[in-house]
Amino acid sequence: MKIGIIGAGQLGRMLALAGYPLGQRFVFLDHSGDAPGGQVGDIIIGEFSDPKKIAELASQVDILTFDVENVPEDAVRPVLDTVSFFPPVNALATAQDRLTEKSLFHELDIPTLDFATVDSLDDLQRETGNIGFPCVLKTRRLGYDGKGQRILKSENDIEPAWVALGSTPLILETFISFDCETSIIGVRSAKDGETAFYPLCRNVHEDGILSYSIAPFERPKLQKNAVAHLTRLMEYFDYAGVLTIEFFVQGEELIANEFAPRVHNSGHWTIEGAVTSQFENHIRAILGLPLGDTSPTGHSAMVNYLGHLPELESVLGIVGAHFHDYGKEPRPKRKLGHCTVTLDDEKSRNRALNLLLATSQRN
Amino acid sequence: MKIGIIGAGQLGRMLALAGYPLGQRFVFLDHSGDAPGGQVGDIIIGEFSDPKKIAELASQVDILTFDVENVPEDAVRPVLDTVSFFPPVNALATAQDRLTEKSLFHELDIPTLDFATVDSLDDLQRETGNIGFPCVLKTRRLGYDGKGQRILKSENDIEPAWVALGSTPLILETFISFDCETSIIGVRSAKDGETAFYPLCRNVHEDGILSYSIAPFERPKLQKNAVAHLTRLMEYFDYAGVLTIEFFVQGEELIANEFAPRVHNSGHWTIEGAVTSQFENHIRAILGLPLGDTSPTGHSAMVNYLGHLPELESVLGIVGAHFHDYGKEPRPKRKLGHCTVTLDDEKSRNRALNLLLATSQRN
Repeated sequence: MKIGIIGAGQLGRMLALAGYPLGQRFVFLDHSGDAPGGQVGDIIIGEFSDPKKIAELASQVDILTFDVENVPEDAVRPVLDTVSFFPPVNALATAQDRLTEKSLFHELDIPTLDFATVDSLDDLQRETGNIGFPCVLKTRRLGYDGKGQRILKSENDIEPAWVALGSTPLILETFISFDCETSIIGVRSAKDGETAFYPLCRNVHEDGILSYSIAPFERPKLQKNAVAHLTRLMEYFDYAGVLTIEFFVQGEELIANEFAPRVHNSGHWTIEGAVTSQFENHIRAILGLPLGDTSPTGHSAMVNYLGHLPELESVLGIVGAHFHDYGKEPRPKRKLGHCTVTLDDEKSRNRALNLLLATSQRN
Repeated sequence: MKIGIIGAGQLGRMLALAGYPLGQRFVFLDHSGDAPGGQVGDIIIGEFSDPKKIAELASQVDILTFDVENVPEDAVRPVLDTVSFFPPVNALATAQDRLTEKSLFHELDIPTLDFATVDSLDDLQRETGNIGFPCVLKTRRLGYDGKGQRILKSENDIEPAWVALGSTPLILETFISFDCETSIIGVRSAKDGETAFYPLCRNVHEDGILSYSIAPFERPKLQKNAVAHLTRLMEYFDYAGVLTIEFFVQGEELIANEFAPRVHNSGHWTIEGAVTSQFENHIRAILGLPLGDTSPTGHSAMVNYLGHLPELESVLGIVGAHFHDYGKEPRPKRKLGHCTVTLDDEKSRNRALNLLLATSQRN
C-alpha cells in the first residue's frame, strides 16, 4: 500500500521508517521540501490548508494520515469519499479547538480543570471571577508547545492578556499546581476496533515544551483510569490509529489537559523501549492489521534536543543510547532530535537520563 | 555525512533505515532502480563493476561502503584516494575468492576443512585422491547461497562435476557431516579499532540458503573461540565495519567455512533482538563513532521468506513478530523478506519459531 502523510516532520519520518519494513510506501505533503520526511519519501510541496494539494496527495495513495494537527477539516472533507483517512477527521477537528476538546472530555466523564469560553473582555472579567486566580488564558486554536498562553495572577493581568491574545477565540482555565505530568498512548485498529495501550510515561516540560519522558511510570491506579478514559475517547470517535491524552497528576487523580490524534513526542521511547513502537502500531492500526505488543522491554528515558544537537560522539558514548537526528535546521527551541536509553532497572535508567540531559545542555 | 552504498538490496535498505536516525544521508549504486534501497534513497543506476559509476557515486558522498560482495577490487581502487571506503577493499577482495579466503584462515590459525585448488581435470582427479570422498567442488568466485557447488560422492562424479563447473577456477574441499552451523558477527570501529561482538547464532540452511537463525546460541567455549578468530581477522585487515564468519560446529570445535565483509543475513535478528543492530553498528563503525551495545535483549528467532511472502495479517498476528518486507518482485528462492521474534525465554521463542516457519511455507 502507498500511504500519504500530511506533514513531513520528524513524526512523519518515524512513521515511514517504521512502515517500510511492513512493505508500505510513503509520500508526504509539506510546505517545505527540506522537511525530515523528504529523506525517506517524496514530498508534494504545499500548504496543509490547501484542498487541491490534499487532493493531489490523495490521488497518489491508498490511505491518508497526518503527522500535524493543524490540517483544516474543510481541506480534508472533499477527499473522504475517495480515500481512507485515519485517524478520523472528527478527532482531528475536535483536538484543534481547546473548547470542543475540553467539552468532549467533560461529556465523556474524563476529568478536566474548570474552563470557560472567552470571546470578549467582559467574558474574561466575569470568568476570572468565577474561576479565580491564578488562571490561564489560552487561544482555542493553533496553540502548541506552550505558545498562545498567558498566566493571570491577579486582576491587573486581565487587560494585558486580553490585548495580547484577544484577537482570536479564547478559553480560560484554572491554573493548578500538580505533582507531575503523564500521558497515555494507545492504539486502536481500523479492523474490529482492537486496542492496545502503552504504559504511562512521566513527562517533564520546560517552557511548555516536552523536555524528557520516562517510562514506564508505574502507577497501577493511574494506568487503569487512563486506559479507561482513552478507551472512551477512542470509542466515541470510532478511532483508528494512535491516540494520546496528556494529564496532570494530583495524588491518585488524573486531570486531562489535551489529547493528540496522532503519534506523540512522549511516545518516542517506544521505538527502542517497547516490543512494538507507536509508529509501527499507528501504521498497523490504520491499515486494519493486528496490533503489535505494547509491553515495555525495560526502563526507558527519552530526552528532546531543542535548538541544538550534541556531538554524535558524546551521545553514542553513553551505553545503550539511541540517537535520533531529524535532520532539521537549528532554530531556537526547535525540536531537532531526541535520544532514548532503555535499561534493565530504574537506577541505571536514571543515571543514563542524567548523562543524556547533560548532552542536551548547550556548552 | 552522506554515505554511498554500492548495492541497494535489502542490506542497503536496512543500513539506511538504521542510519537516518543517526543523521546520515544515503545514495546507492545498483543495476536496478527498483532495488529496495530506492525506497529510502536515490539510486545511481549502473553495474557494480563499472569504475565510472563507482566514481560518480564517490563524487556525491563522504564515505563509501557496500552491501554486495561482488564489487571488483579494480573498480574501487581508483576512488580510494578521494573518498573513505570501508570495510577495507582487501577484505572485500579476499572474500571474493574461496582460495584466498581459506588460505587466509589457514595463515591466521582459524581452522578450516582440507582444501585444494583445482584448475584442471588432472588436479581434480589427484585432489579427490588426497582429500577423499565425499568432497565438494566449488567455484572459487561468485558462489553464494549454495550456487556453483557440486558434491562428489565417488569417482563417477568427477567428470560430470568438471563438465559442470570446470570453465572457472575451482576449489575442492572435504565434505563433512557437522552438528550444526553458526556464525559470529562482530564490528570494529574505524576509530581506535574498538571492537564489539554479538552472541553466536545458530543457522539452519536449506539448499545452501539460510532458512532461519536463532540467537543467542549459548555455547561459551565456541563463543570465546569465535571471538578470538574474528578478532584476528579484523586485525589482519585493520578492519572497519561489520564482519561475519560462518562456521561448521563439530562438538566443541569450530570449522570456518567463509567470511563476509558486511552485515549478514544471520544478523537480522539484531534489529529487534540486540540493544544495537548490526546495521546501526556498521554505520557507527565506518564513521569512527563509538560502537553500540551488542547485548541480546532476549531469545530471538529470524526466519527468511524465500520466493514468496506470507499475508501480513498472518505474520503480525503472532505475538512479538516483526515483519520485514523488502519490496522485491517474487522469484523462486529469492530472499523477499524476513520475520523476527524476540521473547523472554527459549521455550516461548521456539514456539514462536514454529509459528513463523509455518508462515514461510507456501500454502
